[in-house]
Amino acid sequence: MIQKLIEGIKRTKAPIVVGLDPMMNYIPEYIQKKAFAEFGETLEGAAEAVWQYNKGIVDAVYELVPAVKPQIAMYEQFGIEGLKAFEKTVSYCQEKGLVVIGDIKRGDIGSTSEAYAVGHLGKVQVGSHSFSGFHEDFVTVNPYLGSDGVKPFMKICKEEKKGLFILVKTSNPSSGEFQDRLVDGRPLYELVGEQVAAWGEELMGDTYSYVGAVVGATYPEMGKTLRKIMPKSFILVPGYGAQGGKGADLVHFFNDDGLGAIVNSSRGIIAAYKQEKYASFGAENYAEASRQAVLDMQADIQGALEAAK
Amino acid sequence: MIQKLIEGIKRTKAPIVVGLDPMMNYIPEYIQKKAFAEFGETLEGAAEAVWQYNKGIVDAVYELVPAVKPQIAMYEQFGIEGLKAFEKTVSYCQEKGLVVIGDIKRGDIGSTSEAYAVGHLGKVQVGSHSFSGFHEDFVTVNPYLGSDGVKPFMKICKEEKKGLFILVKTSNPSSGEFQDRLVDGRPLYELVGEQVAAWGEELMGDTYSYVGAVVGATYPEMGKTLRKIMPKSFILVPGYGAQGGKGADLVHFFNDDGLGAIVNSSRGIIAAYKQEKYASFGAENYAEASRQAVLDMQADIQGALEAAK
Repeated sequence: MIQKLIEGIKRTKAPIVVGLDPMMNYIPEYIQKKAFAEFGETLEGAAEAVWQYNKGIVDAVYELVPAVKPQIAMYEQFGIEGLKAFEKTVSYCQEKGLVVIGDIKRGDIGSTSEAYAVGHLGKVQVGSHSFSGFHEDFVTVNPYLGSDGVKPFMKICKEEKKGLFILVKTSNPSSGEFQDRLVDGRPLYELVGEQVAAWGEELMGDTYSYVGAVVGATYPEMGKTLRKIMPKSFILVPGYGAQGGKGADLVHFFNDDGLGAIVNSSRGIIAAYKQEKYASFGAENYAEASRQAVLDMQADIQGALEAAK
Repeated sequence: MIQKLIEGIKRTKAPIVVGLDPMMNYIPEYIQKKAFAEFGETLEGAAEAVWQYNKGIVDAVYELVPAVKPQIAMYEQFGIEGLKAFEKTVSYCQEKGLVVIGDIKRGDIGSTSEAYAVGHLGKVQVGSHSFSGFHEDFVTVNPYLGSDGVKPFMKICKEEKKGLFILVKTSNPSSGEFQDRLVDGRPLYELVGEQVAAWGEELMGDTYSYVGAVVGATYPEMGKTLRKIMPKSFILVPGYGAQGGKGADLVHFFNDDGLGAIVNSSRGIIAAYKQEKYASFGAENYAEASRQAVLDMQADIQGALEAAK
């Protein structure tokens, strides 16, 4: 699956992942109204609105990008119905040829981590049959519990040829509270990065590992260091756009082969029509606004990568 | 809800939480057969088996303990159907008067963490109505992302009078990989413990905080230190029984008032009938074996607390 991601990036010339993190206030009123007319102001109605909104965006951008990253929390808040919309979104994106990164940030130990891995990346056995619950292609994993938490995910990834992105340095302002603490003079995130590199060695694809990392666009200097610590790991980079990251900040997240990073934008793409810059599209054409935002992001990143050559 | 937990512990004299972490191979064959006969060897069939198994245990133990802790991974592995069984289990336990600790180990940032909090502890707004997705009473939270990850949970806890247990020192063998790393000569878990104490001050109940901590029974010396660092936080203690912890190891997790800790046992209780000690109950009477295992655990912990006085 890491190979599919790399091929997708080469084909689209867009190391971009669209974050499908639907908030109700992003969803144009006409979509909400239609969903509520059919299912009422219920969890089912909300889930239908989320799904229709996602579908519009995916239809408008699937040829331009290699991957999407649905944030499961935004679906989980609507309970079972929301999670049905999550699964439906994963399936639809895969039908469209997109790589799906489930942003689930799970992490537990032993058989419990394996249960998460089975539910999201693998197959669960029921009697003599097996089933795939949420069937993403990659998931994000929290490293706080150490190898006991990560290895069970790696086991399933090996079986299924799927991949992980381990949280190393997150994009948020308070990420330093624990991640930046100095251990023998070096920040904790560097030690986590070294561990990601070591885990990655155990699960290599052709040129890159199935084990990647999450490093926020908001910390470009740290990204530069971490790029060197984890040369064979893809870095999933959140924090572009709405959180403040720009193309020029991102060049050091890439390797000299022009690969090794994939940049996420969520709100900046899916709610583009709410920005002044794209306001002329109007809520009715929200998906076209998203398409234009992807094209602009692609140009920004490619421009920065060209300028850095 | 912290007050309800404390009252439950006093009433039952059992600072015990039963971990409802059903694995298929724990579930007696007659329950599986019946569920598969009705729903086939499907995710629905597996979820029905899980639910019937849980119900049997809850009916046998609900008067003996104050709380249960369903581990959501064990349900999530069965996809949507598994999560329906999770929600059904939460509802049933609450009907029986039990405090429900959702072991979800979620953690993200800002609006995403808030979405998890809303889905598991709060209410989500849909038009002019609001709904509670999974409605646990407490949840476990991963601290790796810092305050940005925890504060949104605290906001919802304040509104709903519900609580958190933040991972501080987990019970697994590799928990030291990151948690024990020395920062200025002190292990990271102590710094996380201090932060838990500080968050806890912001959200106090009558005597204990709504913000608790997770510290593994397998690390009794660390538990002793953390008890002092977080005097007003309840400690949720996993790792008793199957993972190796014994009553005598646990006394320092408690405060002098005999409160402040609640000890989890999962496999040791719910799959008691598979142990030699309880084998005479037989698979048909698995729930009675679980009841006996709770009584034995209660005696072990109370004995250790008496001996330490």
